[in-house]
Amino acid sequence: MTEFNAKELANPGVRNLSPYQAGKPIEEVERELGIKNIVKLASNENPLGLSAKVKAALQDTLNGLARYPDANGFYLKSKLASKFGVHTNQITLGNGSNDVLELLARTFVDASHEVIFAQHAFVVYPLVTQAIGATGVAVPAKDYGHDLPAMLKAITPKTRMIFIANPNNPTGTFLSTEALADFIAQVPSNILVVLDEAYYEYVDEAERAPSVEWVAKYPNLIVSRTFSKAYGLAGLRAGYAISHPEVADLMNRIRQPFNMNSLSLRAAEVVLDDEEYLAESIRVNKEGMQQLVAFCEDNGLNYIPSHGNFLTIEVGPEAGDMYQKLLRAGVIVRPVAGYQLPNHLRVSIGLPSENQAFIDAMKTIL
Amino acid sequence: MTEFNAKELANPGVRNLSPYQAGKPIEEVERELGIKNIVKLASNENPLGLSAKVKAALQDTLNGLARYPDANGFYLKSKLASKFGVHTNQITLGNGSNDVLELLARTFVDASHEVIFAQHAFVVYPLVTQAIGATGVAVPAKDYGHDLPAMLKAITPKTRMIFIANPNNPTGTFLSTEALADFIAQVPSNILVVLDEAYYEYVDEAERAPSVEWVAKYPNLIVSRTFSKAYGLAGLRAGYAISHPEVADLMNRIRQPFNMNSLSLRAAEVVLDDEEYLAESIRVNKEGMQQLVAFCEDNGLNYIPSHGNFLTIEVGPEAGDMYQKLLRAGVIVRPVAGYQLPNHLRVSIGLPSENQAFIDAMKTIL
Repeated sequence: MTEFNAKELANPGVRNLSPYQAGKPIEEVERELGIKNIVKLASNENPLGLSAKVKAALQDTLNGLARYPDANGFYLKSKLASKFGVHTNQITLGNGSNDVLELLARTFVDASHEVIFAQHAFVVYPLVTQAIGATGVAVPAKDYGHDLPAMLKAITPKTRMIFIANPNNPTGTFLSTEALADFIAQVPSNILVVLDEAYYEYVDEAERAPSVEWVAKYPNLIVSRTFSKAYGLAGLRAGYAISHPEVADLMNRIRQPFNMNSLSLRAAEVVLDDEEYLAESIRVNKEGMQQLVAFCEDNGLNYIPSHGNFLTIEVGPEAGDMYQKLLRAGVIVRPVAGYQLPNHLRVSIGLPSENQAFIDAMKTIL
Repeated sequence: MTEFNAKELANPGVRNLSPYQAGKPIEEVERELGIKNIVKLASNENPLGLSAKVKAALQDTLNGLARYPDANGFYLKSKLASKFGVHTNQITLGNGSNDVLELLARTFVDASHEVIFAQHAFVVYPLVTQAIGATGVAVPAKDYGHDLPAMLKAITPKTRMIFIANPNNPTGTFLSTEALADFIAQVPSNILVVLDEAYYEYVDEAERAPSVEWVAKYPNLIVSRTFSKAYGLAGLRAGYAISHPEVADLMNRIRQPFNMNSLSLRAAEVVLDDEEYLAESIRVNKEGMQQLVAFCEDNGLNYIPSHGNFLTIEVGPEAGDMYQKLLRAGVIVRPVAGYQLPNHLRVSIGLPSENQAFIDAMKTIL
C-alpha cells in the first residue's frame, strides 16, 4: 500500500499556501500575556460595539436557531435591492465579503488564469488566487496605492480577474471616481473587475464612486461590500456582492446554501435601517482619525493618509518590536510586514479613550 | 470589445451546476400561501429549539459582535479535542459540515479526479465535486443504502476521494461498524475517505462506529460531524472534521479565517456540555420515529428504516402532488425526487404534536 502523504495529495495551490493571519483576539492576548483590559486596534472593527437595535432584534431571533437559515436571504436581499436600486437577482450574499471574494475567484478563475491585484492590497486576493492554483500578478504600488495605468498594462490574454480595493486595506489609499471610471472603461469586458468597497461607508459622501450604478453599464464589474466595518457586524459574518444577474446566478450556484447564518441575516436587515448607528460610526471614526493623525504630526511620524477606519503609521524597521511592546502595554495593533510594509503598523480607529491608550503607550515606547 | 458572456467566463463545472435546493423556510411558505402555524418537517432540524443554556450564553455574547470571531476557534477546538481524545491540530472547523465537505474537495480534488459516492447519498457530494470540475461517480444503491463492495470496485487510478454518509441522508440507511471497518481497510491510502456522520448522535450507542479512533489508524480517513442536528444549531452554522494533522493543516490553509461566526463558536462550546439537551433530543427523536413508523405500518405505507432524525416514506408516483397538498395543509416535508426517489417524501421527526399534524394531514389526503 502506498504511504500516506497528505501534501502530495493536496492541490498544488493549496500545498504552498500560508493561511490568512487574523488579528489576535482579545481573549488570546489575555490568555498568553496574562493581562486584562486590552485595547484592540488591530482588525478594523467598529469600536461602538453592536447596534442596540440589532441586539434587540437578535434576542428575538435566538429561539429560532435550531432551524436552518433562509438559503435565499429573501428579506435581506429585498432590502439591499431596494436600497441600491437593483434587482434581487443581482445580489450574492456572503459569509462576510471574504466569502464573496472567494466565490468570485472560484466561479471564474482556473489554474490557467492570471489575477491582477496591487502590491499592499488586501491579502485575501492573492490567497483565493493561489488556492485555485491560478497566477497572481501583484502590480507595484504607487504612493502605497493602486497604480491603475500599470494595472491596465499588466493585462495579458490570460488575465481573468482584477481586484481593486477602494479604500485599500491596509494602506487606506483611495482612488477617485474619475480614475476608477477611466480604468473600468478600459478593461476588456471578458475580464472581471472586482471592486472591493469594504470601507465604502467611511468615505465622504461627495467622494464616493457611483459604483453600483456602473454595474448597469459594465457587466464585468462586481461591487463587493461588507457589514463588518461601519455596520459593526464583524462577528456575525455578513457581506454581499452586486453584479450583473448572470454573474450573480453563477456565483450562487457554488455558494453554500446556508453561508449566511440566521442571526447575520437578521442583523444585517436591521442595521441597514439604523441610520443613527451608521452616522455615529462615521462620526467617531472621523474624530478618531483626527486624534491619531494629530499624534503622528506632533511626533514627526509619517503615516499613509487613510480613507478607512484605520491609520497605517511608519514607525521604522523596529515595527515588529514595537508591536510586541504595544501588546505588553495592552494595545493590540496590526503588523503589516506581510504586506511588504515592514516599517509600518496599522492602527484601527477605536473609541477616543482607546485611541488615547494607543497614543500613551506609543509615547512611553518612543 | 468582446461581448460579455458570464457563462462562457465561468469554470465549466460551475456553468452546469444546479445549486442546492434548501427546504422552504417557514416564513416563505407563510408568505407564499398566506397561511400561519406551519409545521416544518422538511430539513431534519431539531424540534426542541435552541438549548436554554446556549440561549443564555448567546445573550452574554451579543455585545462582542462588532469584533471578528476567533479565527482559530481556540476554545471550541480545545473542547472537541478533549471530548474525542484527539489533538487540536486534527480539527478543522466549518460553517456547518457543508463547509467541511467543500473544503475537503477543494483541498484535494482537481478537475482530473474522480470522486465516488452512493446513489441517493447527500447531494452536497456531487455538488462540491462538480463545482471543481471533477468527475462524480455515483454507485448504485443497495436497499437504498451504500453498496460498499460496489464502491470499492468503482475505484480507478483517478479516484481521489470517497464520500460515505452514515447514517445517510435522505434515506436514513446505516452501515455497521464491521462493514465500514472492512471497507476502510481496503481503500488505498492515497484515496481520502470522508465519513460524514451528521446524524451520528441519533444512532444507538452500541451501534456507533469508533470512527474517530480509526483516524489514528487510517490517515486517509476524515470524520465529519455537525452541530445542526442533535445539538440544535442549524441556524448558527457549526460543523467540524477530525482528521490526520496534515490533512487538517491543508484544509485550514484554504478555510476562510472567520468561517465560523462568534455566536456559533460560543454556542457549540456550550452545547457540547449540555448533555441533558442532547439526551432529550435523542429521546424525542426516538419516540417521534416510533410515532411515524406506527402510522406507516397502520396505513400500509412502505418506509426506509431510518437511523437519522427523519423517515423517508414511499407514497407513490403522486409524491410531488402530495407534497403540495401537505404544504397547503400547513405541513412542510421534503420531496426527494432530486435524489432519484420520486415516489418518496422525507419527513423530519418533529415534536409529538408536529408529527401528529403530519399524520392528520396525511390521513385527510389519503
